[in-house]
Amino acid sequence: MKARVTIMPQAAVLDPAGVATADALKHLGFEGVRSVRIGKSIELDLEHATEEELHQACRDLLSNPIMEDYHLEIFS
Amino acid sequence: MKARVTIMPQAAVLDPAGVATADALKHLGFEGVRSVRIGKSIELDLEHATEEELHQACRDLLSNPIMEDYHLEIFS
Repeated sequence: MKARVTIMPQAAVLDPAGVATADALKHLGFEGVRSVRIGKSIELDLEHATEEELHQACRDLLSNPIMEDYHLEIFS
Repeated sequence: MKARVTIMPQAAVLDPAGVATADALKHLGFEGVRSVRIGKSIELDLEHATEEELHQACRDLLSNPIMEDYHLEIFS
């Protein structure tokens, strides 16, 4: 069983690495870039877990609910 | 136009943050965790870009092809 958690900074939270990356892309000639936001992608290899356990892990350890939103995908 | 780039450490590359996260999950009682790998999720908001331009950005700036694999998704 595998799961993927995608964690992104909330829209209202400044993301300096994303701003720097957007600037760097423009400097490299990628003029079409409006904005960039950088988050984390966490892949879990699991022996067993319930969806509720995984949501709890996302809330308690993997993400910071004050500043980040997470999206959980579970694969068989 | 939006795109998402998921960048993960290659399988052969050690991922200390992932190992630490797997250990922390086990200590918190999530016994079913086999392994964890941590990468980046980059969301791009674009005025215009071709798929080839985006692959070039992934190779040249966003990922390190020596140690990381990337996966590009494009949304209209």
